[in-house]
Amino acid sequence: MSEKPRIAIQEIRQGNFRALARAISYVENGISDLHELLTEGAGSGDVAWAGLIGITGPPGAGKSTLVDALIGEFVRAGEKLAVLCVDPSSSFHYGALLGDRIRMSDWYNHPNVFIRSLSSRGSLGGLHPRVPEIADLLKLAGFDRVIVETVGVGQSEIEIAALADITVVVLVPEGGDEIQTMKAGILEIADIFVVNKCDRPGADLFARNLQHSREHGLHQVDPPAVIKTNALEKQGVAELAQKIIELGRIKQDPARKIPLLAERAWYMIRNERIKDLDKRELALRIGKEVDAGTFNLYRFVSGFGRGTS
Amino acid sequence: MSEKPRIAIQEIRQGNFRALARAISYVENGISDLHELLTEGAGSGDVAWAGLIGITGPPGAGKSTLVDALIGEFVRAGEKLAVLCVDPSSSFHYGALLGDRIRMSDWYNHPNVFIRSLSSRGSLGGLHPRVPEIADLLKLAGFDRVIVETVGVGQSEIEIAALADITVVVLVPEGGDEIQTMKAGILEIADIFVVNKCDRPGADLFARNLQHSREHGLHQVDPPAVIKTNALEKQGVAELAQKIIELGRIKQDPARKIPLLAERAWYMIRNERIKDLDKRELALRIGKEVDAGTFNLYRFVSGFGRGTS
Repeated sequence: MSEKPRIAIQEIRQGNFRALARAISYVENGISDLHELLTEGAGSGDVAWAGLIGITGPPGAGKSTLVDALIGEFVRAGEKLAVLCVDPSSSFHYGALLGDRIRMSDWYNHPNVFIRSLSSRGSLGGLHPRVPEIADLLKLAGFDRVIVETVGVGQSEIEIAALADITVVVLVPEGGDEIQTMKAGILEIADIFVVNKCDRPGADLFARNLQHSREHGLHQVDPPAVIKTNALEKQGVAELAQKIIELGRIKQDPARKIPLLAERAWYMIRNERIKDLDKRELALRIGKEVDAGTFNLYRFVSGFGRGTS
Repeated sequence: MSEKPRIAIQEIRQGNFRALARAISYVENGISDLHELLTEGAGSGDVAWAGLIGITGPPGAGKSTLVDALIGEFVRAGEKLAVLCVDPSSSFHYGALLGDRIRMSDWYNHPNVFIRSLSSRGSLGGLHPRVPEIADLLKLAGFDRVIVETVGVGQSEIEIAALADITVVVLVPEGGDEIQTMKAGILEIADIFVVNKCDRPGADLFARNLQHSREHGLHQVDPPAVIKTNALEKQGVAELAQKIIELGRIKQDPARKIPLLAERAWYMIRNERIKDLDKRELALRIGKEVDAGTFNLYRFVSGFGRGTS
C-alpha cells in the first residue's frame, strides 16, 4: 500500500497537465486508487458539484463533432473542460476510429481543454471501472465540467447514464424505430435528447415524437429536453450548452443528488469487490480442473479466492 | 444457513413440477442458494451439457412466436423443454406484455414443457442474477434444453450471450441499420442469426448481408449461421431446431466449453460478491450523511460493509 506512487495533488491543482495525465494513468491501471483521494473530499463525490456530463448515442450520430462544438461553447463561457472518450475496448472494431477522432479535435492543444481516451476494460463495451475516480481527479485539477463520451454499444451507455449528473443522448432523425424499441431504458434516463443532423428529412417529426414520448417516462422527475442540432454547422449547440449549464445548477440540489450518489457508490463498491476477477485466469484454472476430470462449477465458485497460489 | 428450506431434489428429479416451481422461487429470491446444488454436479456446470439456449433480439422481432414454434419441434423430437422468459423488470413498460405472452403459449400445459417468467432484478434490464443456477435446477429436473428468452434491451442480451451455450439473435428484415451500428458486440457473440418475418421485403438481401458480415467476426471460432424463418407459418423453424441440436453436440467439446464456464463462474462469483449491495439502502445511508453534512463518497465506499447496523 505504502509503495504505491503518490498522486501529485498539488501539481495537479496548479494545472500541470503532465502530472494529471500521469495520475490518470495510475488510477486507470489500478496502481493508485481512490484512497489517495479520500481526504480530499471534492469531485464527483462532492454533493454540490454536478459537472459530470455523459454523452452517448449510436455510432454515426455525430457525437464527436457535437462534443467538439460543445467544448467551443463552454470555453467561450470561460470554463475549463475535460473530455474522456471511452474506447469500447480492443475487442471491438472502433479502436482505430476513436484514435482518429481524438486527433481531429480542434481543441487538443487548448490550455483550458484536456482530452483523454480510456479503454473500456472489462466485458463487452462497459465503461472503464475507474471513470468516477478519474472524473474526480479532473474536478480536483480545476475543470468545471467533465464530459464522458461513450460509443453507444452495450453496457457503456447504461452505465454512464447511471453515473453522470446529466445524460445527453444523441440521435439522428432516422432513429425513430430505435427509440421505439431498443432503448426503453435510455428513454427513462436521458436528461437531454439531441436530434443531430437536423437538416435531414424527418428531423422535426422525430423531435416531436421524442417530445411526446418523454411524457411517458416514469422515473424522470423532470421530463427530458429535446434539442435539435446540426453540429457540423454549429447550429443548436449554444442552446444545448445553455441547457447543460442550467440543468447543472438544478442538479446540485442535494435531494436530487442522493440517488445519483447511491448509483456511484454502488458502482465503485461493486468494482472494488470484483477487481481481482479476471476471466482469463478463471479459464486457466477451470481448464486444469476439466483436464483432471475434477471440475464442478459450484465447488469452483464457492472456493474461489481460497487456495489461490 | 441450516434454516434455509431444502430443495427437494428427489421430487424434482421425479418430475414434480410443483416442487420444481417452489425450488426456483427459493433460488430466485435468494432463500436457497447454489450451495444446495454443490454436491449434485450436473447442470450448466456440467462440462458435457450444452443445452442452455439464449434467444434474444429487439421487441417486435417475433421471439415469442418463434420460441413457441421451436418448442413444438423439440417436443416432436422427444425432448423435454424448459423456457425462462426474462421480464426486464417492473421499471420498464414490458411487464404486462410479457404476462400476456406467457399466457398465450400453446405449450403451457404440456407435460414435457415448463414455462416460467423471471423478473430481471437489479439494474436496467440485466438478467436475473440466478439464471445459471435456475438453469441447473431445470437440468437436474430432466429437461434436455433450457431456453432463456430475453427482451433485447440493455444488458440482458449481452449477459445471456455470455452465459448461454448457444445464442440465437432474432432480427427482422428491416434490421439492417441496427446490425451495422448498434450491435457490434452481438455480431461477435451470436451463434445463429434468425431473420424472422422473412416474407417481408428485403429479407433475402438482409440475410445475405448477415452472411457477409459474419465473416468479419473476430472472436468466433465458427462463423454464425444465418437462418430465415417465418415463425407464424412455422417456416424455417425445423431447420433452426436442427441447427441448435447440431451445435449443441459440437459445443459439448470440453475445449470449447472452458471459456464459457469461465464466463459463468465470473458471473456467479460477481453476483455472490455484490448480493448485499442494495441501491435503496445505499441511498438511505448516504441521505443521512448528506443531511448531517458529513458525506464523503470515498470514505463511504471504503467504509461500506463495516459499521452496518
